[in-house]
Amino acid sequence: MVSSLRLPTLTSLFSPSFTRRSTVSLRRHLYLRPPLPAGFSAQSAASSPAETDDRVDKKKSSRVQDRGDTDRVITPRSQDFNAWYLDIIANAELADYGPVRGTMVIRPYGYAIWEAIQDYLNVKFKETGHSNMYFPQFIPYSFIEKEASHVEGFSPELALVTVGGGKELEEKLVVRPTSETIVNHMFTQWIHSYRDLPLMINQWANVTRWEMRTKPFVRTLEFLWQEGHTAHATPEEAENEALQMIDVYTKFAYEQAAIPIIAGRKSKVETFAGADKTYTIEAMMGDRKALQAGTSHNLGQNFSRAFGTQFTDENGQRQHVWQTSWAVSTRFVGGIIMTHGDDTGLMLPPRIAPIQVVIVPIWKKDDEKTGVLDAAKSVAEALKTAGLKVKLDDTDQRTPGWKFNFWEMKGVPLRIEIGPRDVSSGSVVISRRDVPGKQGKVFGISMEPSVLEAYVKDRLDEIQSSLLHKAISFRDSNIVDVSSYEELKEAISLGKWARGPWSASDADELRVKEETGATIRCFPFEQPQGTKTCLMTGNPAEEVAIFAKSY
Amino acid sequence: MVSSLRLPTLTSLFSPSFTRRSTVSLRRHLYLRPPLPAGFSAQSAASSPAETDDRVDKKKSSRVQDRGDTDRVITPRSQDFNAWYLDIIANAELADYGPVRGTMVIRPYGYAIWEAIQDYLNVKFKETGHSNMYFPQFIPYSFIEKEASHVEGFSPELALVTVGGGKELEEKLVVRPTSETIVNHMFTQWIHSYRDLPLMINQWANVTRWEMRTKPFVRTLEFLWQEGHTAHATPEEAENEALQMIDVYTKFAYEQAAIPIIAGRKSKVETFAGADKTYTIEAMMGDRKALQAGTSHNLGQNFSRAFGTQFTDENGQRQHVWQTSWAVSTRFVGGIIMTHGDDTGLMLPPRIAPIQVVIVPIWKKDDEKTGVLDAAKSVAEALKTAGLKVKLDDTDQRTPGWKFNFWEMKGVPLRIEIGPRDVSSGSVVISRRDVPGKQGKVFGISMEPSVLEAYVKDRLDEIQSSLLHKAISFRDSNIVDVSSYEELKEAISLGKWARGPWSASDADELRVKEETGATIRCFPFEQPQGTKTCLMTGNPAEEVAIFAKSY
Repeated sequence: MVSSLRLPTLTSLFSPSFTRRSTVSLRRHLYLRPPLPAGFSAQSAASSPAETDDRVDKKKSSRVQDRGDTDRVITPRSQDFNAWYLDIIANAELADYGPVRGTMVIRPYGYAIWEAIQDYLNVKFKETGHSNMYFPQFIPYSFIEKEASHVEGFSPELALVTVGGGKELEEKLVVRPTSETIVNHMFTQWIHSYRDLPLMINQWANVTRWEMRTKPFVRTLEFLWQEGHTAHATPEEAENEALQMIDVYTKFAYEQAAIPIIAGRKSKVETFAGADKTYTIEAMMGDRKALQAGTSHNLGQNFSRAFGTQFTDENGQRQHVWQTSWAVSTRFVGGIIMTHGDDTGLMLPPRIAPIQVVIVPIWKKDDEKTGVLDAAKSVAEALKTAGLKVKLDDTDQRTPGWKFNFWEMKGVPLRIEIGPRDVSSGSVVISRRDVPGKQGKVFGISMEPSVLEAYVKDRLDEIQSSLLHKAISFRDSNIVDVSSYEELKEAISLGKWARGPWSASDADELRVKEETGATIRCFPFEQPQGTKTCLMTGNPAEEVAIFAKSY
Repeated sequence: MVSSLRLPTLTSLFSPSFTRRSTVSLRRHLYLRPPLPAGFSAQSAASSPAETDDRVDKKKSSRVQDRGDTDRVITPRSQDFNAWYLDIIANAELADYGPVRGTMVIRPYGYAIWEAIQDYLNVKFKETGHSNMYFPQFIPYSFIEKEASHVEGFSPELALVTVGGGKELEEKLVVRPTSETIVNHMFTQWIHSYRDLPLMINQWANVTRWEMRTKPFVRTLEFLWQEGHTAHATPEEAENEALQMIDVYTKFAYEQAAIPIIAGRKSKVETFAGADKTYTIEAMMGDRKALQAGTSHNLGQNFSRAFGTQFTDENGQRQHVWQTSWAVSTRFVGGIIMTHGDDTGLMLPPRIAPIQVVIVPIWKKDDEKTGVLDAAKSVAEALKTAGLKVKLDDTDQRTPGWKFNFWEMKGVPLRIEIGPRDVSSGSVVISRRDVPGKQGKVFGISMEPSVLEAYVKDRLDEIQSSLLHKAISFRDSNIVDVSSYEELKEAISLGKWARGPWSASDADELRVKEETGATIRCFPFEQPQGTKTCLMTGNPAEEVAIFAKSY
């Protein structure tokens, strides 16, 4: 479904060393770390509220003990973006490597982000008329060969089952890399007349692509996704459906993940193997590389012709159906990490954060403990009742300072601190993850449930919106309008995205890729006004394209 | 996870002909049916309210047209239970065969039942302290070999990936049949000290077992399930966890699925390959065969010893963890069908029904249509707002009588009929799926939302409870207390379950299986009082066991 995966030359964008180096780094953190989860980074200490907060004093606290956390460091983002990414995944316990090369274990905190993505999209899919169902993952090899460009795109990365129940199989089976072929095989049995259309389904499933260069979430041998498949009576309906679903993804990206993707159409070169048109949402990561975060394909009649998926129309004529497919995968989790994270760790938009508010009770003497914990518990209960996702970190095996750093590293949007003085005054202290240090900290917010709830919800909304706007500013300051190939090359060499009019050939597009490492990410739906001249050929152009290096 | 699957001789319970016959039957219905979904059965017509309801007159209705439905027949349950089961699956569009032998496509209506199961269990798993995560499905072959009884149990049914990315793999990969091995491989990396315990996780996933005799939902080559995996510091904790989870399954079966399972412990012979103890829930199907509907295993230290999954306890000693695993699969959908269905079709308990209420508007003249449809829409909206799952069947391509039969066949618990007279009187007619004919039909229920909502909810509760009690009566009237092997043989030959004191050997247990086809389904948790004498040996016995033929 991810069309760029089909282009072998894309792998040239990756330095040969990064996968190995990253692996070593991730492994080191995983194997060498002490029993409890990894903590804070040397980089984050300077801006940590804990360091400047007189309410927290690790040394005097008798109830807490710290372990040596100094061996766990998050590489600064600016120093080595890939190492930073893998450090975050390890330290925040988002994922781990599986025993088979290129596979990934998605750990509870990482899976909870995926669940937030699922929860939102699943509702939207049903609202737009789709039903969930499930297709087998084993596909007869002969199916894959039926659609010419599909087999060309996918055959290099197939995993094949050749033995079952102790016997060599007569026909080898493909472990699904995507399901268009088996879906069409079944559609031929379910679709008879125009009355059976549109047929609109979705499945949540695992898929397998034998990738050579892998990276947790972004590109793994097996990944989780949803794949929608629809069949329609007319090309217009299929086109509308493909556009509707890229719009669902766009809204999700902006409103939930706070990722200001650019939506548009893929070039012919970058179109999905078997599609007439591919629509895409392209996100700018913190290193300014593009991440294709979701795609929606108008498949035309390519698969219905290959499989004979026909219906009888209102005039009694047999016709091939018009189809779409569309997908978002666990790759999106990688996009969230790489859009919002900073040197301190992960930073999660409130609407998809597994924990929106962490409560850290603070006490020094034993006689303070009960009062503080009681207050913390009742605050936690009140916020949970208000529908918020709350974690009360009341362990006495860690200092408050350690907890501050830990939950900042995990990207929790808001922290509530409650100490003995707060209990006396009936108030709490609230810190924002996205605003470091004292600036993000507000004292004296009333514990009274309705007041606190309203305050917390407002702050979460503010953070959600602030993350989006920060990402928009970053994106916009890194897109350069270009009108010549020279300008394009310069923009790309500076690590930016280049946007310029394009009506040149596929060969020219491939030349840009070879010479700059950048590909056309999309022809954005939002186009500037006015006449356009192709940056490459000087011929008239109808659209601007966006070029960028990508994952 | 399903321990009986490990016993090759169990397959002798299936007549060699049923799989083939059933396939033919299912295929016939799928391929020969007309464009719109299959309809009613000849058998159901006699008891259909449509036939005795003067409000419905197909012939006079100018707006509706029926197609030839006579070729779609549900085999009577009493005549051929297996054929009936497959007919229901085909006609109610629950599932279809995949292109690879033994695989199943779960269609939207069947998948929605699975979603209802997931929604309930997922909440309960989280409430009991488990987190969802995801493990890769490809397991190095060497992992499977590490636990002796595990490899013995599973190796005959493995699917193996031997080619990836166009190359022969150095080590073949197992497509997971269950995940204990890979889970332990990862647990060794995450568990260090007692502070990391208990570690309690769950995953929703597909699994593959190369079964020779398959049947939709009940036994398929690939199926969907959840598998919980936990690690604990003490054997007591592991035992409590295994019991807690079988209790979660028990509550689900009784309260949601209305299936009065019998919960208990498996005999040694029937215990999961690699477990110390297996707890099970055993359901009696409509043909009185037992269905193992969920299992929970106390794995002891079998896997932790094989994989070296150790922790440092509070005294600084290294110890192997104590583990559990537990699973419920899409097989449960088969259990629901075979518990509640009748000659008319499926019958779904309201709490897991994808559609709880279907509304069928009835009009004969064009000038009645608008009023009837408006009323039907507002009733539908009111009930949806009240949180009910409602379907308004307002197509004019089918007669009301056809719709009555169709939705009865799909097992929808309640039907609301609204005709012109009802609109005038501001009332509706309500029919229960579980009470056939006029007896289940009540006229003149007010359309006023609060009155209607309360009435509908009460009826749904009544149906839920009634289905459970009907199933309890059926179950209890088909369990025979036996005190000798002769009595046991007689009970089994009558198709019943036999319950009797048992302290005989594994060899005796296998002899019973060979001679009667019945196995020990479980030693039920609920045991009769008093001294017991083994039905086979005459020696003292501590427990009664339940024997039955099973799926």
